[in-house]
Amino acid sequence: MELGVSDRVKPLVDAVRRMVRDDIAPLDLEYHAEVGKHPSGDRFRMTDRQVEILKSLKDKAKAAGLWNFWLTDSAKGYGLSTVEYAYLAEEMGAVSIAPEIFNCNAPDTGNMEVLERYGTDAQRALWLPDLMEGTARSAYLMTEPQVASSDATQISLKCERLGEDYVLNGEKYWATGAGDPRCGLYIVMVCTDPEAAKHARHSMLLVPSDLDGIEKIRPMEVFGHDDAPHGHMHIRFTDVRVGADAIVLGEGRGFEVAQGRLGPGRIHHCMRAIGRAEYALELMVKRGMTREAFGKPLVDLGANYDIIANARIAIEMTRLLCLKAAWMMDHEGVRAAQPWISKIKVQAPLMALQVVDEAMQMYGATGLSQDTPLARIWTDLRTLRFADGPDAVHRRQVARAELRKYSNAAP
Amino acid sequence: MELGVSDRVKPLVDAVRRMVRDDIAPLDLEYHAEVGKHPSGDRFRMTDRQVEILKSLKDKAKAAGLWNFWLTDSAKGYGLSTVEYAYLAEEMGAVSIAPEIFNCNAPDTGNMEVLERYGTDAQRALWLPDLMEGTARSAYLMTEPQVASSDATQISLKCERLGEDYVLNGEKYWATGAGDPRCGLYIVMVCTDPEAAKHARHSMLLVPSDLDGIEKIRPMEVFGHDDAPHGHMHIRFTDVRVGADAIVLGEGRGFEVAQGRLGPGRIHHCMRAIGRAEYALELMVKRGMTREAFGKPLVDLGANYDIIANARIAIEMTRLLCLKAAWMMDHEGVRAAQPWISKIKVQAPLMALQVVDEAMQMYGATGLSQDTPLARIWTDLRTLRFADGPDAVHRRQVARAELRKYSNAAP
Amino acid sequence: MELGVSDRVKPLVDAVRRMVRDDIAPLDLEYHAEVGKHPSGDRFRMTDRQVEILKSLKDKAKAAGLWNFWLTDSAKGYGLSTVEYAYLAEEMGAVSIAPEIFNCNAPDTGNMEVLERYGTDAQRALWLPDLMEGTARSAYLMTEPQVASSDATQISLKCERLGEDYVLNGEKYWATGAGDPRCGLYIVMVCTDPEAAKHARHSMLLVPSDLDGIEKIRPMEVFGHDDAPHGHMHIRFTDVRVGADAIVLGEGRGFEVAQGRLGPGRIHHCMRAIGRAEYALELMVKRGMTREAFGKPLVDLGANYDIIANARIAIEMTRLLCLKAAWMMDHEGVRAAQPWISKIKVQAPLMALQVVDEAMQMYGATGLSQDTPLARIWTDLRTLRFADGPDAVHRRQVARAELRKYSNAAP
Amino acid sequence: MELGVSDRVKPLVDAVRRMVRDDIAPLDLEYHAEVGKHPSGDRFRMTDRQVEILKSLKDKAKAAGLWNFWLTDSAKGYGLSTVEYAYLAEEMGAVSIAPEIFNCNAPDTGNMEVLERYGTDAQRALWLPDLMEGTARSAYLMTEPQVASSDATQISLKCERLGEDYVLNGEKYWATGAGDPRCGLYIVMVCTDPEAAKHARHSMLLVPSDLDGIEKIRPMEVFGHDDAPHGHMHIRFTDVRVGADAIVLGEGRGFEVAQGRLGPGRIHHCMRAIGRAEYALELMVKRGMTREAFGKPLVDLGANYDIIANARIAIEMTRLLCLKAAWMMDHEGVRAAQPWISKIKVQAPLMALQVVDEAMQMYGATGLSQDTPLARIWTDLRTLRFADGPDAVHRRQVARAELRKYSNAAP
Repeated sequence: MELGVSDRVKPLVDAVRRMVRDDIAPLDLEYHAEVGKHPSGDRFRMTDRQVEILKSLKDKAKAAGLWNFWLTDSAKGYGLSTVEYAYLAEEMGAVSIAPEIFNCNAPDTGNMEVLERYGTDAQRALWLPDLMEGTARSAYLMTEPQVASSDATQISLKCERLGEDYVLNGEKYWATGAGDPRCGLYIVMVCTDPEAAKHARHSMLLVPSDLDGIEKIRPMEVFGHDDAPHGHMHIRFTDVRVGADAIVLGEGRGFEVAQGRLGPGRIHHCMRAIGRAEYALELMVKRGMTREAFGKPLVDLGANYDIIANARIAIEMTRLLCLKAAWMMDHEGVRAAQPWISKIKVQAPLMALQVVDEAMQMYGATGLSQDTPLARIWTDLRTLRFADGPDAVHRRQVARAELRKYSNAAP
Repeated sequence: MELGVSDRVKPLVDAVRRMVRDDIAPLDLEYHAEVGKHPSGDRFRMTDRQVEILKSLKDKAKAAGLWNFWLTDSAKGYGLSTVEYAYLAEEMGAVSIAPEIFNCNAPDTGNMEVLERYGTDAQRALWLPDLMEGTARSAYLMTEPQVASSDATQISLKCERLGEDYVLNGEKYWATGAGDPRCGLYIVMVCTDPEAAKHARHSMLLVPSDLDGIEKIRPMEVFGHDDAPHGHMHIRFTDVRVGADAIVLGEGRGFEVAQGRLGPGRIHHCMRAIGRAEYALELMVKRGMTREAFGKPLVDLGANYDIIANARIAIEMTRLLCLKAAWMMDHEGVRAAQPWISKIKVQAPLMALQVVDEAMQMYGATGLSQDTPLARIWTDLRTLRFADGPDAVHRRQVARAELRKYSNAAP
Repeated sequence: MELGVSDRVKPLVDAVRRMVRDDIAPLDLEYHAEVGKHPSGDRFRMTDRQVEILKSLKDKAKAAGLWNFWLTDSAKGYGLSTVEYAYLAEEMGAVSIAPEIFNCNAPDTGNMEVLERYGTDAQRALWLPDLMEGTARSAYLMTEPQVASSDATQISLKCERLGEDYVLNGEKYWATGAGDPRCGLYIVMVCTDPEAAKHARHSMLLVPSDLDGIEKIRPMEVFGHDDAPHGHMHIRFTDVRVGADAIVLGEGRGFEVAQGRLGPGRIHHCMRAIGRAEYALELMVKRGMTREAFGKPLVDLGANYDIIANARIAIEMTRLLCLKAAWMMDHEGVRAAQPWISKIKVQAPLMALQVVDEAMQMYGATGLSQDTPLARIWTDLRTLRFADGPDAVHRRQVARAELRKYSNAAP
Repeated sequence: MELGVSDRVKPLVDAVRRMVRDDIAPLDLEYHAEVGKHPSGDRFRMTDRQVEILKSLKDKAKAAGLWNFWLTDSAKGYGLSTVEYAYLAEEMGAVSIAPEIFNCNAPDTGNMEVLERYGTDAQRALWLPDLMEGTARSAYLMTEPQVASSDATQISLKCERLGEDYVLNGEKYWATGAGDPRCGLYIVMVCTDPEAAKHARHSMLLVPSDLDGIEKIRPMEVFGHDDAPHGHMHIRFTDVRVGADAIVLGEGRGFEVAQGRLGPGRIHHCMRAIGRAEYALELMVKRGMTREAFGKPLVDLGANYDIIANARIAIEMTRLLCLKAAWMMDHEGVRAAQPWISKIKVQAPLMALQVVDEAMQMYGATGLSQDTPLARIWTDLRTLRFADGPDAVHRRQVARAELRKYSNAAP
């Protein structure tokens, strides 16, 4: 079980780290400060400066060959293992816009995986090139306002076959990235047969975002933020027609696609969360060493040594667990890796939230303010306790896997 | 040690509760949605509708005699005890703008106490009436960007005597309420003699907010929110001159005033935090009973019974601790109550944050969004772990009080 | 809601405290060191010295009028309220044998309550006097090895009517105090009608401990301790015959008696647990102030200030919650007090275990050894998370009470 | 960073696991039940049956080649890496007497390492063969009653040179294994020069346990257990003379030896602790699946799914952290591995205690009794939060390593 940084990936990690710290981090603040400054007043349109920041950084990344690392276990690109990718994702995770700079951001990576693994040649030809180039963006529409979507069998956006088309009616929300003006593709989980067996009711469709009948009702806010121009949109479908060739794999196979998509997606989220925790710990220690109260550096006061030590211990354990889940994906396949993905999906966000919270506390009120990235990191991380399944659902999976070991146990 | 709701205060509690739930809560959302809609584009100017909402609600509260409850242990007003006030503050705390409606909001109550208890007749005459009427607002300027202000001996805004005036130079930030266009008075902690004994270096001044040389540099943000039009301002003083009669109690007595002010202020924050936790638990349980997954109401899934039970236990204990701290203030005085105030100051925000966090989790991603008040409540509460002293400083106080009991203990 | 120490009970608290600290604590260690030294080698027979220690201390307590405080809300004895008793129970709880010295120990107080409240005149006359004098002891037999007794409806010790007698067959264990040579009475929960409605299947019998067919199989051990001579016995009933007049209240009313008995019993356990936590904190602080490492007293190292502060905060909150539960019993009755008793039953042992654990840690390995009472206190407290219902059952009760508030809530 | 089970060690792990489960576990209970049954009444003398149990099991282990695995990175024996040994230690850790059966128990393994790595040829020839054969036992005497030995610079047992001898005076306690009648060797940390630099004051001596002037005062108890016949002894040295050739490495090098000894020793403790947590989780799940209350298996009640999931997550993370610490020892050396050893030394016992505590709770009161091994496991684990350094000292080490990374950080 090799969990270290391979020789092959080591120089990539170094290069990504340098670019994140030296090039991206300084522009990240400027990028976010630009939000809402488009002359139209529309927060979901990018300013020229935003476009320029993204373009110049992406060009630099591409030129350096730091691009599309996520395509693991594939002949294309680097063909990295998930373990190798983990080390890169962690570095990218530290800064908000960094993953997109390397074309390794959610939800696009997961969506590209859907196309690459389950798409027809025609589907791939239509959508993949621009996504792989980073010029187009996509969204994944699963969660619905009317039902607890953590129980995915309740997903109910209506999809009826009408001649050569499917017709869609209903609502989705928390469609991350759907606010982005460049977002041309929605991958939508729909209900094609509410009477079918539980896991055969749903299908996955590739829906162009500009079809008639698609309406962005509002951006969902996270702790008051609309995360413009990216956004988490609430979208209404009214008699939206899409060709039957838009279906992925076939009717009733929506769950299969969703499971295949969510495994890697979840683990990538966790890798980035660990990168953020690592960054927060760095900020916490530096602050504690350079700020004084009661005649001493803050680190020497109260329980701060213990807080730092506990953060370090928690980060290391969580990183190792994430690497093991990645290794399981690489060597045993998504199905066998499932309980491991659930484990890390519970653990990584909780751990990272705790570390960032302590970092904020070390900073005093400044830690909550615009003067550090900590508050933004915290709210981003908080969404991970829901995204791709809430903690409770993943704990349930872990427990059931445990019980299965003894299901024939004598009393 | 009578900690219950007195017969006298019971009908007031009921009346406040009804008004908060029936009248204020519905307009609270509208009030916040108005922020930033002033024709000037200035987020720190109120719209006509905001002015109207505040005025109509305040008029209603005044007409019902629900006004200025905070003036505890005084011949004026109700003359409530701190214990009695606690039950009212809890009800008001549940909704964001409610405390102001009853003229019971921070930082104005604390500031009015300073005037009432330590002010000269002239100072009282000048500032108190409008504040008591709720037509003027005030701010309390203590925290400074250059020093860890949790160690208040480090406060360093320079104040020199020049003839009949004091001249102020330096910066303050986190001046809550200073963004409000109605805010006319700053109570400012300044350093009058950096060479004096540790607790005699500082003085407290009453500074009109419109003096020459006072500059609002920027609003501090809390998790990205500027909390306009209220605001937490970063303010620069450049050769600001204020008459010598603006001093409270006299030179070198700033600490004394600060301590007298902060005791009740801290405990009021805690009462309101408990009200918010109670409200969050109500939302959590209702959501859990009416939303289904896996064929059951959410409350019947996973650890939710335990989560609800633990929240209930934590709220009750924390409320009792808060009431005891209030009782100590009423019966033993601020000094004896100090370690009790520190205890509740540590406990109440932590408890409330935990309950609100669980409530958000029960709601799914909706819990973080604009569709519930939970996210706003959470970020507000998070600031309480710093406001009026960070957790670590209060724990230190509690521990030292414990050690003093045995300071002559034989080995 | 008066939760303070009343004028009436204040001198009693002082007297009990003095006697516990000055007279009982020194002999407590000697009493326990005597266990197993009876010439017969039988650990469940007391040595002469043990008998003498108990007698001399009890005589002293009686002479001082410090006796049978537990009989709350009664014309007999002091007629204390439960709140008043709480302050006394806390003092007695600090030292292992102290409660018995004042005839206020479990399970005898609960058993005497059963006799006093539900017994016939004849039953009272037969059993109460010696128990009230402290010359006889009793046990309460509820838990059974074959079923999870936390669900009391599963209790199944068979009890059949045969002429004028009941005939008992089955096993009980964890019969605390049944090892004591002075233990003459077992109050036994039996199943008289397994076909009856869930809460009407059981009855409560007063069974002399020396009847034919009663066999003490073994002492149950707690962390390896048999707690001799008191003991927690595993007992087998084989065709044990007891007269029909041994039944309490009547057939099918076992649950009613159990509920009436367990309410006060649970709360008394909690009071004593708080006393132990208080004692452990005292030991922790004294040790931390007088032991040095790295050139400083231990209290000044690491997170010890925070640990002490958190312990103090937790103790105060828990004490107040316990007092409120007691107040509810006094003023609203056992039924209304039920969820409050469940709250404190969850909280008090968990809190006390945590404080004692930290105290052990401050002592280094000595904290686990015979050189402090901490390890014994910890194991005693650990049993409280099961005794009279495990945590999980009480959390369930608290949650259900919470849900009932909204059971008609609209979605 | 290869952390998996190597092909070489896999069959050994299987063989050890089978022997622990099939052969040792059944006799473990009998072995402990024999304690105190020696005809002399001396609990620190073994009965014939105890001798026989140990001998027959050790013979079997030796015959199967399952012996002395601990000698990592050495030409002797298997030459396992620390990572490989971890998998074996975990299996052995599950059952109390199992480590000794494979001659892999503390403190003997650590003591043998001292001899092997730092001993002269003569010292090795004198002591090693019988220890390697498992026929002799040894103890490590470091902790002293008069000082907080967590600060090892305070160690003060007086050692003076007198001609060809050293003369020892003072006390040691918590000398684990020193009660064992087979224990012939004490490795003793002494103070040879109290005036020397902090880390050059101490020396390590090899002291035969039967010298004149050595007196076993008493066994230290752990939660009331003397752990006979092994024992944790309190020992007094009065003018004990030992030849100058008994010194290890030379005067003033005691710290160097202690550090070299404690690294592996700490990590072995952690491996075994993880094995115990794993075993406790197995017991917890099996109990929960086969015991019913309220009409359901216990696992389906309350928060039990979450408890099981959290235990599984915690075990996996901790195991990985332990393996990484082992890998660091193998590849980077003891010094570089130090902060990693401190991390796992904090984490493993805390995690294991938590899991065992939950397992006890799932069992009801039975979980605390002699009917499961859980209570014994818990008390054993509790000592690990002190053994080889308390949590606080290790957290301090971890924090200082973190601070060193930024010690030149600009403000």
